[in-house]
Amino acid sequence: MIILGSKSPRRKQLLQESGLAFTVEHFDVEESYPESLQKEEIAIYLSRKKAKAYAKPLGDAILLCADTIVCIDDSVLNKPADFDEAYAMLSHLSGRMHEVYTGITLCYNNEYKSFYERTEVYFKPLTSIEIERYIIQNSPYDKAGAYGIQEWIGYIGVEKIIGCYYNVMGMPLSRLVKELLNFYPDKALPNLFT
Amino acid sequence: MIILGSKSPRRKQLLQESGLAFTVEHFDVEESYPESLQKEEIAIYLSRKKAKAYAKPLGDAILLCADTIVCIDDSVLNKPADFDEAYAMLSHLSGRMHEVYTGITLCYNNEYKSFYERTEVYFKPLTSIEIERYIIQNSPYDKAGAYGIQEWIGYIGVEKIIGCYYNVMGMPLSRLVKELLNFYPDKALPNLFT
Repeated sequence: MIILGSKSPRRKQLLQESGLAFTVEHFDVEESYPESLQKEEIAIYLSRKKAKAYAKPLGDAILLCADTIVCIDDSVLNKPADFDEAYAMLSHLSGRMHEVYTGITLCYNNEYKSFYERTEVYFKPLTSIEIERYIIQNSPYDKAGAYGIQEWIGYIGVEKIIGCYYNVMGMPLSRLVKELLNFYPDKALPNLFT
Repeated sequence: MIILGSKSPRRKQLLQESGLAFTVEHFDVEESYPESLQKEEIAIYLSRKKAKAYAKPLGDAILLCADTIVCIDDSVLNKPADFDEAYAMLSHLSGRMHEVYTGITLCYNNEYKSFYERTEVYFKPLTSIEIERYIIQNSPYDKAGAYGIQEWIGYIGVEKIIGCYYNVMGMPLSRLVKELLNFYPDKALPNLFT
């Protein structure tokens, strides 16, 4: 059994689709990180910070924590605070490639294992009408980089990706299953799956 | 207004997500093609054949027909007839890259315009347990190549794609919107969208 330590409804949905057996635990973690960290280091650091913040005994369960960040031009795009910030972020992503990193930390038997997955996302040039329509209709204030690839702006705006699609949604499932089987072969199929 | 000439529930769902204004018309087309055709030529040929089979007057509407094919090793994978064929196709795709082509034909004012989109899909090595589980649970007999990327085998089995994700599902939305605006600028936003 896996314990998903995440408040993200998208992560929960993806894990459900994967067929892995899991429960969800919500807990708050302050998402700051040392300024010296870069890209994948940030995603891994934050996933580990979340895992270390889990205070209950795990027993025979595997704890799974994740963090997804959006990077462009060596800067990290966080969740937008308001319309103007969301508009600025999407204008920045428009017509360009950006990177999405998800860091994953697993904990089992007091041992922590971390890895990350990287996906390149290519937006077409977005018009101001498209950006405004999306922000007004979808309120992407809970999303790093101000967009969800599985929402309208992703459907009509993303021309190409290189890498795992589900990584952009917040959980690289194929990689996760691979690492679970790799780290915990004794818990392998069919035990991991419902 | 667009008329989607397709029986595919996935195409209908994708168009709905795109916000394009459309209605759906079902009609049967025999999906054979000349043996001399290759890859994208097949997808375009079949999308055009579907468009030409539409018998009603279009009026001011744009007809949209599409065909998606799965190619590996210069062969085309069709819809599997039974469990054994589905098993053979997924075994063939396992641990390899294959190509997905969607051909699109638009018809407006008696003029036909066609284009295609190509996506590379990389499956991890699939186990026989995974292939069997998927076929039994999902019955992918209506899907070229015996899989849907938005189904379980796609979640846990696809490591990477290069190109448009929605193209693999059967409708490259970003490209479609681009070509609609390109071919029919007078029908552009906001008229195309609901």
